[in-house]
Amino acid sequence: MHIRRTSVHNAWDNAIEPIAAIAPGAELTVETADASGGQLGPASGAADVAALDFGRVNPVTGPFLVEGAAPGDALVIDVLDMSVGDWGWTACIPGFGLLADDFPDAHLRVSAIGDGGAELLPGLRVPVVPMIGTIGVAPPEPGEHSIVPPRRWGGNMDVRHIGPGARLVLPVGVDGALLSLGDAHAAMGDGEVCGTGVETDATVRLRVDVRRGAAPPTPVIETDPRTQRTGAALVTTGIGPDLMQASRDAARALVAEVAARTGMAPVDAYLLASVAADLKISEIVDAPNWIVSAHLELSLLP
Amino acid sequence: MHIRRTSVHNAWDNAIEPIAAIAPGAELTVETADASGGQLGPASGAADVAALDFGRVNPVTGPFLVEGAAPGDALVIDVLDMSVGDWGWTACIPGFGLLADDFPDAHLRVSAIGDGGAELLPGLRVPVVPMIGTIGVAPPEPGEHSIVPPRRWGGNMDVRHIGPGARLVLPVGVDGALLSLGDAHAAMGDGEVCGTGVETDATVRLRVDVRRGAAPPTPVIETDPRTQRTGAALVTTGIGPDLMQASRDAARALVAEVAARTGMAPVDAYLLASVAADLKISEIVDAPNWIVSAHLELSLLP
Repeated sequence: MHIRRTSVHNAWDNAIEPIAAIAPGAELTVETADASGGQLGPASGAADVAALDFGRVNPVTGPFLVEGAAPGDALVIDVLDMSVGDWGWTACIPGFGLLADDFPDAHLRVSAIGDGGAELLPGLRVPVVPMIGTIGVAPPEPGEHSIVPPRRWGGNMDVRHIGPGARLVLPVGVDGALLSLGDAHAAMGDGEVCGTGVETDATVRLRVDVRRGAAPPTPVIETDPRTQRTGAALVTTGIGPDLMQASRDAARALVAEVAARTGMAPVDAYLLASVAADLKISEIVDAPNWIVSAHLELSLLP
Repeated sequence: MHIRRTSVHNAWDNAIEPIAAIAPGAELTVETADASGGQLGPASGAADVAALDFGRVNPVTGPFLVEGAAPGDALVIDVLDMSVGDWGWTACIPGFGLLADDFPDAHLRVSAIGDGGAELLPGLRVPVVPMIGTIGVAPPEPGEHSIVPPRRWGGNMDVRHIGPGARLVLPVGVDGALLSLGDAHAAMGDGEVCGTGVETDATVRLRVDVRRGAAPPTPVIETDPRTQRTGAALVTTGIGPDLMQASRDAARALVAEVAARTGMAPVDAYLLASVAADLKISEIVDAPNWIVSAHLELSLLP
């Protein structure tokens, strides 16, 4: 079964008619649209980011009815393979992102995506590590639910390890599960600090199965080595009693450090952090101060 | 210069007399005591954990006066090499740790440390990835400051990437910097969820240098590939508007998942998570819900 990226929706709602029914164990190939829903193209600029219609962002392809899936079951999704488009976009969207106060202006970088990586800045190629930003099932609560926040039922999780080779286990909330996916990234850092990865369209091959009565409390993932990062890294830290503030401090310190080392514009360092740096909780027990660290592979610095 | 682990202190205080003076660029070898300060041994049990004298925990060897270092300078510390003891301990300490409410009772596991790893549970060996839990300089504020929380000046950072091959850059707060270190771990997971790694004594070879006027706002680290983890992992998630709660949920879900898959006691799964699982901030921009994920290498599951 091959599903085109024209069958999309922009909110979670268990009343949306399924576009196809699949049997447990079936494989399907799903095309996904980029997170702007086609509002941005390779020739777009910052003004197009500022003019984005948020009612059209983050379209997901679906929903797929999984035959026999019922509330309390687990949906087991294997990402068999995934290809991304030949270009992607990364934006600083006013009012959105971890450092929204530091970077109030719209900013856009379009990356050519090829064998050498995604070229975020001239000559600076980020390794392509494809992943699915949004994948989830319909919540049992009736009505429309915003596509932006993730929930127990998955959705816009932006876990960068949900890529080729990964297995995702979601709780089923309604009969038929009603699976949808979209928001592919050619690259993203843990935490997606500016709010966007290298946003692109994609074609994803999945196998979907059902485990009776095995719904996990929250999504569980088994990763594949392909989605890890392994090199020497530059690490900055945020230290204090609030994890959000520590996350901001760590990201801000990384932006400053990268800008100082390379001469890169801080806003570009912010985008680079979003697509390639990892936010990790280094320490969460030494009360009253926790440490969030931001990790960027040193090989990415020009 | 070789410093024995008998010259320790248990609080930060810039009035503590230095035990040695070193010139910028010098190498030194420092022995560190385990985080119990010798209160626990290979034959200890849970009762010894419950009886710990907290006034003696987390001893650090030092302080070292770095000649010429002044407030506003950066102290650049290269970890050249590091060896750990042949045993270590990992404890659930009542009232301490991310899931203190779930695990109110003292629990202790003693690991034999050898070429095959640290044997946390019979037959379950965690890879040995040595690291320095506590390393810092004296704060400029007078008086005693608890050794437990990390601060801008470093201290009990528990960043698992501060190991062999890593470079740590600390701001200098007082004349001579007054560097101290201790609390070595043979293994620890990002976040150190139960509050202890595989706690051990160690011998650390360092090179210490000074950069004039280059104090970073918070500690900066350059990691080495030896401190990364790269295999396929089991990932659980916590989803919600509070990072601390999401961290607890992710850790709790990992403990439950590991216990269910292996039959391991939940408290042992908690210790395993502390020494080998990584807490990462997967998503921090999709308001109002963030995702913290807990990553454990699948190869560690029996």
